[in-house]
Amino acid sequence: MTTRVPLEKKVLSENDRIAAGLRARFHEHQVFCLNLISSPGAGKTSLLERTLERFGAREHVAVLTGDIQTDNDARRLARFGFPVKQITTGGTCHLDARMVERALADWPLEPLDLLLIENVGNLVCPSSYDLGEAAKVVVLSVAEGDDKPLKYPAIFFKAALLVVNKLDLLPYVSFDLARAREHARRVHPGMAILEVSCTTGEGLEAWVRWLEERREAAKAGSA
Amino acid sequence: MTTRVPLEKKVLSENDRIAAGLRARFHEHQVFCLNLISSPGAGKTSLLERTLERFGAREHVAVLTGDIQTDNDARRLARFGFPVKQITTGGTCHLDARMVERALADWPLEPLDLLLIENVGNLVCPSSYDLGEAAKVVVLSVAEGDDKPLKYPAIFFKAALLVVNKLDLLPYVSFDLARAREHARRVHPGMAILEVSCTTGEGLEAWVRWLEERREAAKAGSA
Repeated sequence: MTTRVPLEKKVLSENDRIAAGLRARFHEHQVFCLNLISSPGAGKTSLLERTLERFGAREHVAVLTGDIQTDNDARRLARFGFPVKQITTGGTCHLDARMVERALADWPLEPLDLLLIENVGNLVCPSSYDLGEAAKVVVLSVAEGDDKPLKYPAIFFKAALLVVNKLDLLPYVSFDLARAREHARRVHPGMAILEVSCTTGEGLEAWVRWLEERREAAKAGSA
Repeated sequence: MTTRVPLEKKVLSENDRIAAGLRARFHEHQVFCLNLISSPGAGKTSLLERTLERFGAREHVAVLTGDIQTDNDARRLARFGFPVKQITTGGTCHLDARMVERALADWPLEPLDLLLIENVGNLVCPSSYDLGEAAKVVVLSVAEGDDKPLKYPAIFFKAALLVVNKLDLLPYVSFDLARAREHARRVHPGMAILEVSCTTGEGLEAWVRWLEERREAAKAGSA
């Protein structure tokens, strides 16, 4: 469909322009922003729940959560007491920078230092849309199979971090952690990889540490 | 992005035109065609493996399998001795009717009576693209969660059948089968639902029976 290319390029370059504006604002206000991407049901919302419950009330954290239809995720996440806003895309398969810009229109960035964006569940399309984030994080459940980095390489190439989730299911599925790491690094040699279970809590300390280190580094970079 | 609507409509109506041509050809040659759609790793390829191994050598079955980057699935499926062709989309998040038309260009349809199309792993975008199939089938793994029909309603509304896969993982995940059925039927009241495990084989006889019944009904309809 060659007719799609020029418009797709135009849409993406318009998106890049808005994303660059968001990135400049995040930098100005020292907000470290992450864009979480995964298949449906890989555990993005669970990872955010386990993350928010580890944060104290003094943390300056907010969450934007994208979904096609429901606001279930926002309701799940709001009970931790941090600001949470749902972006319902109404059919669109990814978040784009304009949706984020709109969602932030009435949110002052000054009080924040961490903004977590949960994208729509989709391992393909969200990887093309810059949201102004400091880094993309891809979440892969062991139930999905260790071949996924090779089959969906774009997001594994673009994400700074791979979080392998549902470690507790390893005994019951044919997922080889070493092979998954090898596949991820074949697509993206420098990729950081963490392995967690949001059910048992295994590995979550390392994830929160990664988050804190990046947040501190971002602050130092802004100063 | 209002500028996207007209072109999206044009692309979709062009797709519908090609799909209608494919559907006419399938009808003419009495080929029953299914379009399998799911998230990455829900088990489409495994379901096809378990299906093909149940078919005798006299079956007139062929498979088209879509993937963004690799031909892993075609290699997995080719060992059962039926014709299999990989459609590598090179980044595109769904199959479209033209890709199917091209893949079938050098395949005579006369000897076939069942064509199984495995779409790209994506619960969102493939639901918009008619491939000329007789029916869409959505596969949902219990590891993904019983809320998915509400969160990704388009495909659950459009699919004639929901196959809930990975029943063997039920003891280890918080997935309520009754709730999943209720969610699916809230979106699509008339939906057929089957529950299987491609690992243990549970429920696969009912799936093959569903397939055979529909294939026979399609033949009777063509006669």
